[in-house]
Amino acid sequence: MADETTNPNSIGIVATEVVDLTLPDGGLKLRNGGVLREVRVAYEAYGKLSSGRDNVVYICHALTGDAHVAGYHSADDGKAGWWDEMVGPGKGIDTDYYHVICANVLGGCMGTTGPSSINPDTGKPYGSSFPDVTVADIVHVQKLLIDELNVNRLAAVVGGSLGGMQALAWSILYPDLVDCCICVASGATLSTQALAFDAVARDAIVSDPAWAGGDYYESDNGPDWGLAHARKIAHITYLSPESMQQKFGREKREQEPRSKNRHYFQVESYLDYQGKKLVKRFDANSYLQITQAVGAFDLAEEFGSLEKAFEPAKCKFLIIGLSTDWLFPEEQSIELAEALHRAGKDVSRCTLEAPHGHDAFLIEIEHLAEAVRAFLPWVTINSKPAKQERLELDESKAKSFNLILETVAKGSRVIDLGCGNGTLLSLLKEEKGVRGFGVDIDVDRVITSMDKGHNVLQMDLDEGLSRIPDGMYDYAILGSTLQVVRKPRTVLREMMRVAREGIITFPNFGTWSNRVTLALRGCMPKSDTLPHEWYDTPNIHLTTLKDFIELCCLEDIRIVDVACLPGDKFLNRLLVSMNLCNLGAEKVFVRVTGKGTIDRSAPSCRVSR
Amino acid sequence: MADETTNPNSIGIVATEVVDLTLPDGGLKLRNGGVLREVRVAYEAYGKLSSGRDNVVYICHALTGDAHVAGYHSADDGKAGWWDEMVGPGKGIDTDYYHVICANVLGGCMGTTGPSSINPDTGKPYGSSFPDVTVADIVHVQKLLIDELNVNRLAAVVGGSLGGMQALAWSILYPDLVDCCICVASGATLSTQALAFDAVARDAIVSDPAWAGGDYYESDNGPDWGLAHARKIAHITYLSPESMQQKFGREKREQEPRSKNRHYFQVESYLDYQGKKLVKRFDANSYLQITQAVGAFDLAEEFGSLEKAFEPAKCKFLIIGLSTDWLFPEEQSIELAEALHRAGKDVSRCTLEAPHGHDAFLIEIEHLAEAVRAFLPWVTINSKPAKQERLELDESKAKSFNLILETVAKGSRVIDLGCGNGTLLSLLKEEKGVRGFGVDIDVDRVITSMDKGHNVLQMDLDEGLSRIPDGMYDYAILGSTLQVVRKPRTVLREMMRVAREGIITFPNFGTWSNRVTLALRGCMPKSDTLPHEWYDTPNIHLTTLKDFIELCCLEDIRIVDVACLPGDKFLNRLLVSMNLCNLGAEKVFVRVTGKGTIDRSAPSCRVSR
Repeated sequence: MADETTNPNSIGIVATEVVDLTLPDGGLKLRNGGVLREVRVAYEAYGKLSSGRDNVVYICHALTGDAHVAGYHSADDGKAGWWDEMVGPGKGIDTDYYHVICANVLGGCMGTTGPSSINPDTGKPYGSSFPDVTVADIVHVQKLLIDELNVNRLAAVVGGSLGGMQALAWSILYPDLVDCCICVASGATLSTQALAFDAVARDAIVSDPAWAGGDYYESDNGPDWGLAHARKIAHITYLSPESMQQKFGREKREQEPRSKNRHYFQVESYLDYQGKKLVKRFDANSYLQITQAVGAFDLAEEFGSLEKAFEPAKCKFLIIGLSTDWLFPEEQSIELAEALHRAGKDVSRCTLEAPHGHDAFLIEIEHLAEAVRAFLPWVTINSKPAKQERLELDESKAKSFNLILETVAKGSRVIDLGCGNGTLLSLLKEEKGVRGFGVDIDVDRVITSMDKGHNVLQMDLDEGLSRIPDGMYDYAILGSTLQVVRKPRTVLREMMRVAREGIITFPNFGTWSNRVTLALRGCMPKSDTLPHEWYDTPNIHLTTLKDFIELCCLEDIRIVDVACLPGDKFLNRLLVSMNLCNLGAEKVFVRVTGKGTIDRSAPSCRVSR
Repeated sequence: MADETTNPNSIGIVATEVVDLTLPDGGLKLRNGGVLREVRVAYEAYGKLSSGRDNVVYICHALTGDAHVAGYHSADDGKAGWWDEMVGPGKGIDTDYYHVICANVLGGCMGTTGPSSINPDTGKPYGSSFPDVTVADIVHVQKLLIDELNVNRLAAVVGGSLGGMQALAWSILYPDLVDCCICVASGATLSTQALAFDAVARDAIVSDPAWAGGDYYESDNGPDWGLAHARKIAHITYLSPESMQQKFGREKREQEPRSKNRHYFQVESYLDYQGKKLVKRFDANSYLQITQAVGAFDLAEEFGSLEKAFEPAKCKFLIIGLSTDWLFPEEQSIELAEALHRAGKDVSRCTLEAPHGHDAFLIEIEHLAEAVRAFLPWVTINSKPAKQERLELDESKAKSFNLILETVAKGSRVIDLGCGNGTLLSLLKEEKGVRGFGVDIDVDRVITSMDKGHNVLQMDLDEGLSRIPDGMYDYAILGSTLQVVRKPRTVLREMMRVAREGIITFPNFGTWSNRVTLALRGCMPKSDTLPHEWYDTPNIHLTTLKDFIELCCLEDIRIVDVACLPGDKFLNRLLVSMNLCNLGAEKVFVRVTGKGTIDRSAPSCRVSR
């Protein structure tokens, strides 16, 4: 029931519209040489289109999806659209701001032209004569649809799984139309394992005698067994093993066992149900068509490399992986994001904790909505205010931030390793016009940084920056992070590899107060910069300024500048002013460059007050 | 070719023997009520049987395996047995020491009675009339086989995958016959995901019209499509996604494409080949029978819990998981081993790095052979010496070990957290008759400890000892490990939960020399007990004796005894003798008990010289 009391944020009652595309003479030419004389598209659209027609979010659906993204089809419709949790007033894709469009894909069977449509040349269903479609063709039809709707700019293209592939294709094929591309639980191609599952599943359809080479529409039976079987295989890949275990375990169903040993497990019954359900609403030829389009999608192969594929793209990208998705594993979203990064694009990436596997992009979306909201540009419509960026400057960090701001040249390329909430990146952008890039291990911090408009990759520094090319940045900044990584030496090497200069700040364990605490009190020191107890400190590699200088010598890293932050204590200030930096500096700022002359003498330190 | 120059460690030419079992009157009764009037078993046996008939290793094969474990069937036989790399002279299961037996399973089609055998009642193949078999029936027939061979003791039962389930069943069903049980890449039941794949695969066989309800032996065609399809699904689950990606990627085959868009991928071709290959050598009804037996195997359900299931077992267990096995994920071997541990059994467990997935127990076995060799008991036959246990006592550890030996009561239950190479466990066993249990994160150390005869579980202390019951041990020992874990406080709590007393040794950061180094030299101290540079030290939570006492107070842990190890330095000894332990002790030994009176004053420390 579309009851607004139980679902106050529903977009309400919506309808699927149908449009016959205006095609060029000769019809729509497809990538693989086929031609369609007529193309009908089924779509839905919600939210007010702005006067500038610039607030459109185009949503691309996955394999067996349709145009019905959100809301209900009638007052007594019990089932909301497939992404109702994400799309609606106040939701992740907020229809108070955005005009949402979604259409059934070409080759599908939910209203848009596909193999079960009538072939105008014969007056009968296409069946085996339906030409092969590709993801590029699917996106081409979407472009013709928005032309038809007088929309010539997309604030964002968003999709999960196959929808994510379509979003990527949009960014490449129509670079001037797309502002943002959000690709969830997807990749630039299928993994070999996913290819294998799809191939085996398709084999079940075409081996079903009722498939009849694809021309089964006029017979009594279609390849129902084959389609259901294909769906069952695929459905296993949509769920995480853990969620399957939790949901079904080894529970058995009471159902005429064919033998004492042949249990009918709950999970089997569930898959049987999923298979039957799909057969009722989906066409086997469409299933073949679309999975083949997915299987053939390979941006790296098509363009030579992922970097080349994305060369034309102009939009910002958000790539989201799901922690337990094994159909499109996290690794694929990392590869995709890092290729975009290497190609010099604006890209952010994160992995969301999602216990339910690939399907989670539909069913577990709290964090997802947050990430999408943080990434999307906000447009002013109605009376609601546009998103305000606000710098929350931590006072104790102000001094080291100032030193960094003094150091970084205008307009330079900066990577901030351990960027936290993105405050430093915001300062660098505002005051130095820097196009910064953030890296952080924590997804909440990644989302907060994205919300401030920055590009951020979720990354564990200890696992290396190996996919970032040498010398890609002017500066790599490692602010208060050296002491929390497991492999500080490796991180230091890596930052010197990817950037011309390094800026490191770290708490100095060598202060007189730390020395006195250990020497006279016999316990591990705590201080403003090292405030944790020994047993729960994230600071697992304590070091002094002197130690750090030694390591730089060892690594052939030239120290250009050292500045000492004495903190509040009078004695600290005094010591630092006497150039006794290692005794007086609570925190140290060091600017280094790659291999150069090694100066084993302690550099003269600047005092920063 | 069985060329001994290229394969010097082959067992050589072997033959499959056949024996008709002597059955009780009325035939062999099966678990599910079926009866077999005749049972023939095909088996192979290698290596000399000792005069005491006590050197038998029984190997259980997996789903589609057979009795032919190792060696060649003839001089021009190009294909060695399925586990030839593991079984032979000088190999993991060394036929110079052991007499190896392996038989084809009941219900199979490789010589042992199964659905394709002739039903003596009808003179025709059993087909649909073959009764359902279970893993227990399979093992029962193996027991009857060894009876027939006059063997009444098994030095070990070994198996991978389904073979591992058989090995577990042996330990429960015939506890007095089995000395060791080795269970590789297996579990006490199938995961829900594996159940689902098997169910879908079986559905392809029984949905193949040629299956004919199981009675296809006298028709021209069997359910070849269904069997091949089932195999293809299963084969995907045998490989790790990474190895599939590496092996096949998205490579395409030149083979009459049905359409431009329908690529024929190399992985598809490989799976087609695997399907066809199985059809040539395997029977569809046997496939159904055996996978159903696997699906029905559930020790926890059958006996109420895993702990209860293993109550009768008397043997030692070795449970091995493979890092990229997703058919029997590592988690299942952990659950199994921890249940055995809770049930008070002798059990060791480790996870081996195996890039190739589930199949790796056959194809990547270097580490596996080592682990099996370390675990197996050595029996003296021929002239080769039996395995010698040798204590390699690290001199610098001798003192803290002595303190521990003085503390631990005779015959008590001890868990050594971070047991290293098992040296302390060996000392405790020799001198105190302690039945110790080891825990270590490193697989090499686990294997070395097993080699010394200890029970060791591979475990990351930071992930908790949560599956070890409260108060299971008299002593938990944490030797030089507190400072390397990420969560020392949690580890301390956990050790106090599982044991009545705790013994902790750790390097003391509070020594005068450390204090002087930091105070006067301004750099991170190094010492005999803390020898690493700050940037690559595993010691990530440095602490002093004083700090540690504070933490114990905070945690309501009562300190019973503190002993100080001053090391070699004169001044250290002097300071310790003056009861200035935190200044003089390079290393500290602390004995604690659970919640008790809190004494915030520093305890008086013993001096250990």
